[in-house]
Amino acid sequence: MRAHHEPIHDIAHLGGVELYTPKFESTLWYFRDVLGMELVEQSGPSAYLRGYGDYATSTLKLTEHAAPGVGCVSWRATSPEALERRVAAIEQAGLGIGWSNGDFGRGRSYRFHDPDGHIMELYFEEQRYQAPAHLHSTLKNLPQKFTGRGVGVRRVDHLALLAKDVEANRRFAQDLLGFQLREQVRYNNGTTEIGSWMSPTAVHHQLAYVVDVKGAHGRLHHFSLWVDNREDVLRAADILTENGIFIEAGPSKHNNSQGFYLYSYEPGGNRVEIYSGSYLVFAPDWEPVTWDEQERGSGTYWGAPLPDSFIQYATPNVDADNADTAVKDAKFPVFF
Amino acid sequence: MRAHHEPIHDIAHLGGVELYTPKFESTLWYFRDVLGMELVEQSGPSAYLRGYGDYATSTLKLTEHAAPGVGCVSWRATSPEALERRVAAIEQAGLGIGWSNGDFGRGRSYRFHDPDGHIMELYFEEQRYQAPAHLHSTLKNLPQKFTGRGVGVRRVDHLALLAKDVEANRRFAQDLLGFQLREQVRYNNGTTEIGSWMSPTAVHHQLAYVVDVKGAHGRLHHFSLWVDNREDVLRAADILTENGIFIEAGPSKHNNSQGFYLYSYEPGGNRVEIYSGSYLVFAPDWEPVTWDEQERGSGTYWGAPLPDSFIQYATPNVDADNADTAVKDAKFPVFF
Amino acid sequence: MRAHHEPIHDIAHLGGVELYTPKFESTLWYFRDVLGMELVEQSGPSAYLRGYGDYATSTLKLTEHAAPGVGCVSWRATSPEALERRVAAIEQAGLGIGWSNGDFGRGRSYRFHDPDGHIMELYFEEQRYQAPAHLHSTLKNLPQKFTGRGVGVRRVDHLALLAKDVEANRRFAQDLLGFQLREQVRYNNGTTEIGSWMSPTAVHHQLAYVVDVKGAHGRLHHFSLWVDNREDVLRAADILTENGIFIEAGPSKHNNSQGFYLYSYEPGGNRVEIYSGSYLVFAPDWEPVTWDEQERGSGTYWGAPLPDSFIQYATPNVDADNADTAVKDAKFPVFF
Amino acid sequence: MRAHHEPIHDIAHLGGVELYTPKFESTLWYFRDVLGMELVEQSGPSAYLRGYGDYATSTLKLTEHAAPGVGCVSWRATSPEALERRVAAIEQAGLGIGWSNGDFGRGRSYRFHDPDGHIMELYFEEQRYQAPAHLHSTLKNLPQKFTGRGVGVRRVDHLALLAKDVEANRRFAQDLLGFQLREQVRYNNGTTEIGSWMSPTAVHHQLAYVVDVKGAHGRLHHFSLWVDNREDVLRAADILTENGIFIEAGPSKHNNSQGFYLYSYEPGGNRVEIYSGSYLVFAPDWEPVTWDEQERGSGTYWGAPLPDSFIQYATPNVDADNADTAVKDAKFPVFF
Repeated sequence: MRAHHEPIHDIAHLGGVELYTPKFESTLWYFRDVLGMELVEQSGPSAYLRGYGDYATSTLKLTEHAAPGVGCVSWRATSPEALERRVAAIEQAGLGIGWSNGDFGRGRSYRFHDPDGHIMELYFEEQRYQAPAHLHSTLKNLPQKFTGRGVGVRRVDHLALLAKDVEANRRFAQDLLGFQLREQVRYNNGTTEIGSWMSPTAVHHQLAYVVDVKGAHGRLHHFSLWVDNREDVLRAADILTENGIFIEAGPSKHNNSQGFYLYSYEPGGNRVEIYSGSYLVFAPDWEPVTWDEQERGSGTYWGAPLPDSFIQYATPNVDADNADTAVKDAKFPVFF
Repeated sequence: MRAHHEPIHDIAHLGGVELYTPKFESTLWYFRDVLGMELVEQSGPSAYLRGYGDYATSTLKLTEHAAPGVGCVSWRATSPEALERRVAAIEQAGLGIGWSNGDFGRGRSYRFHDPDGHIMELYFEEQRYQAPAHLHSTLKNLPQKFTGRGVGVRRVDHLALLAKDVEANRRFAQDLLGFQLREQVRYNNGTTEIGSWMSPTAVHHQLAYVVDVKGAHGRLHHFSLWVDNREDVLRAADILTENGIFIEAGPSKHNNSQGFYLYSYEPGGNRVEIYSGSYLVFAPDWEPVTWDEQERGSGTYWGAPLPDSFIQYATPNVDADNADTAVKDAKFPVFF
Repeated sequence: MRAHHEPIHDIAHLGGVELYTPKFESTLWYFRDVLGMELVEQSGPSAYLRGYGDYATSTLKLTEHAAPGVGCVSWRATSPEALERRVAAIEQAGLGIGWSNGDFGRGRSYRFHDPDGHIMELYFEEQRYQAPAHLHSTLKNLPQKFTGRGVGVRRVDHLALLAKDVEANRRFAQDLLGFQLREQVRYNNGTTEIGSWMSPTAVHHQLAYVVDVKGAHGRLHHFSLWVDNREDVLRAADILTENGIFIEAGPSKHNNSQGFYLYSYEPGGNRVEIYSGSYLVFAPDWEPVTWDEQERGSGTYWGAPLPDSFIQYATPNVDADNADTAVKDAKFPVFF
Repeated sequence: MRAHHEPIHDIAHLGGVELYTPKFESTLWYFRDVLGMELVEQSGPSAYLRGYGDYATSTLKLTEHAAPGVGCVSWRATSPEALERRVAAIEQAGLGIGWSNGDFGRGRSYRFHDPDGHIMELYFEEQRYQAPAHLHSTLKNLPQKFTGRGVGVRRVDHLALLAKDVEANRRFAQDLLGFQLREQVRYNNGTTEIGSWMSPTAVHHQLAYVVDVKGAHGRLHHFSLWVDNREDVLRAADILTENGIFIEAGPSKHNNSQGFYLYSYEPGGNRVEIYSGSYLVFAPDWEPVTWDEQERGSGTYWGAPLPDSFIQYATPNVDADNADTAVKDAKFPVFF
């Protein structure tokens, strides 16, 4: 029997993210023409895209919707048995929704929600990408040609979700999904959990939960795509600006995660990050790094300020402020 | 019970490498002053060093020795139970040597050898690095100050060992250590296994076995250290050249692994790689990429040739050619 | 006779800058150990330094002084005749001070001041740098070894001076020194000249005059050192931060000049820029690019704000606000 | 009167290069789609292109021709008077051909040839580029939008011509055009001038003459386009390779010029360099750096070999070896 305290290795990686957009064509242009992703399928209200280095057929799904935000977040299991183990645990926790035949490119999938209400799916069967002739790479180990179009993002990296109760959602990801906690921001002498960064892989974080200052549920802070070098992020900033895309912050370097970030809003309104740097975590007994108010500071390493919108804006945007008094009264310097 | 075909997750990562050197002081200068590693301990004939991003106290051990080459290669287990499981499997395979109290910074360790005769160790208990005051980083999640001295390597990445029988050693790493096979070079219609690249982590490879064209045993092809950006590798080439270090090949890009490489010989004679790029592997059911003679070509992506020494030279160097006729008769284009 | 409208080519380039510092040893540490410049001479209250790519023996002079600020700014003439021509023109304009035997490494020099009162010198004879043995480069065309110490700035690039009357000083540089006007910021329908960027070389600007919002005279906004790649500027930000140096702004990209900037304060208080990117100007009839309030915006290309201090702080710092009402009443968004 | 020994500043910069190609459409694809240049005009057998940072309307002309090679190389004068002065000098030297109304985007131009027979033109009147709406940059000082298509070369940098008699052509460029000699390769105790690198600007070289080992005349070694960072050159290598373009050498670093090079053959057969790094020269009395056989070595800084084709191949290619015995007998290691 697996000893209780051994790490769980049942989730292999973030499989893909669905983004809702009220401006479908413009959002598609942003990801395909500006960021350089490849469109692999369109069906109904949805388009499926991929980075040139993603091994799966699709890692980003865009779906026309009244408001921007995050749809289904999917995670690949490490084996059929691992899938069953996680589904059993999730069902036992009362978070399950049920099985489906799976979205484009995947086998049967189990849908559930996190405590905050974000929709997620687990699956094991995955269709490996087979590039059409014009997208064959001259590198046998690269699933698709590097086209050199626009930013040229390599792969999906991570996403940050807002949650009214960070701790509850963080525990869910640790206990039910087996993610390793990498870093935390805790205020008020450690009693208020502002954000937690977690991962099922060596990548620093593939999932972050950060407190929703509006007290809403099910919202997205940002979705992040990887490029290999910091210089690629700088080049991305030039390309975004030339294409009239609003840059909210960066390129600069976070203290938390050491990530080299560039945040822009895709035309549908979702915050998208072009990301590089950061660090890999290999330690099986990693001790989470915890930042208090003073250590966290502006959330950036070189002193660049992050704008108010970085805390206040998320998708879907909410006008009314439904935050609990306790949350509203906390002072939130920029903390992502 | 763990189903037989589920991936084994018992090895967390490459823990460290011991290099033998006949020119101890010069080798120490190379790693500390030129590559910018930190010296954390000297005892007896050995020095212990680290990259600024390594979480362990030491990841490189230099030991004075009559000839260059690789000493003990150590791997950290994911848990105490995982350690026991791997030790049991290794003992059963007849490759075990025995337990010790562990090298500097580690708890009890189990020593064994791979089929080719390289010495290895498994351990779980690891002393996390505690930086002295003058090496405190202003980043709370960075174990040590980035000093900006010389090349400034971040961490240990991988090593490539020569083996007379690649297949036997590759199977050992897969079956006994649980490494995932990432890429292979196979010649003669796939019947001759020239090299195999494997890893226990998302890092493309932490261990490679490549055929020893001299037919010798226990030798090292190269040891590799990571920097974050390709530009860092270019800068490293400038620094190595200004310091009179012989560059054997690069900076350039391999086709296999997509690694951006720079090979130099440290003064003791071992081949050391400054490395970036490559790609992470997340797929639990990764299908190894296999290259034949034609696909492998020169082993580089942009066409840069690799010199003969890249095949012929390894440490310790052997004058006599003891290769089996079968191996000698094979034509070996550059293949790493 | 030289036709009046032909460009003047009498000034070859910015020769060097003298910085005053009340914290001599710390300032020396900043330039030598953190930025990686080489100390070539110390005499009296002054130290002479150089970048590894500067062909002159010294391009930066540090002088102990009660307050930070800029000392003498020197310019090399293109020939002995060119030197005489410029001196004659300056004398005729009533800005001359007189000849000296020249500072360290130079022949006879002519001292003068610009209309705002900054001290400058012209010279032709220059001592080419001869590296001592330990600083010989392995590149025959590099005057000095690239040591890989700290930031590793290559050469002096430019400086920005504050002036109460930008137009008068800009005309001085154009008419008497023959600099080409590259860009301008003009507010109030073009009637208020906020800043002008000029150069005697293909480098975008080697001298900028920007309005002194405090109405003072003879002050320095920043002194700038070149690195070859944007990635070098990012690396510099890491090194500065690890060394506890205050970063005021950047790394980011200006709209004016397209310069990739990183501003920090050296311990003596002067603002120093690590700089790359920008663009070279080759057109003999270059039409200056003029920015109005709206076009200039925050002064940055990707939207990063510049802090108030970027306008308010200069060296020497002045407490009293002596600005003319006209200047004070103008709204100054960040404009450098 | 201008003193005889004062530098001549009559040529402002390399204006543009005409390349002949027997595969017009493929060559156009290479420069427009792979390198990312903009097509501004097509007329008769020619297409006119530009880099996004070139201030002139066009800097590259492609002309359909039976064989590849270089057509007219044009230089812009610094003033109308400078144009007249240079024309007078060239006519007096017997190298003149005559005036024309000028090529696309230029005013009257004077055509001549260098001693080796390459066709050149001088002009002053130049049509500044006016970008159409879809190519307006969001940077007011950038003549054209940075489109992020393919390699994205910024501007024309330089070209290298082969000549049977390097010295005669080098003297022509120095004496008649006023170029400054920056570096030389001289073999046989300095008696054989193998190559000379010269420039009318701070850019290290805009024109190189290198000995034609085939003893032919009027040939092109390579034409070079600039990108801002070394990382851009690495990215270019990926893009070229993905597009099936043959890379002859690089990315790597020359010792001469310190240039970071990447040589490929455009489909028409001409060697094209993607280039960055190098160094600017500001000294009015620059002492040329001279390399002998040993110092020159392989012509690269980090030890990467250059292939034989780098010496043997030029455009138009010549089968017969017409070299003088003296030239043929000289041993030519790779020397560019």
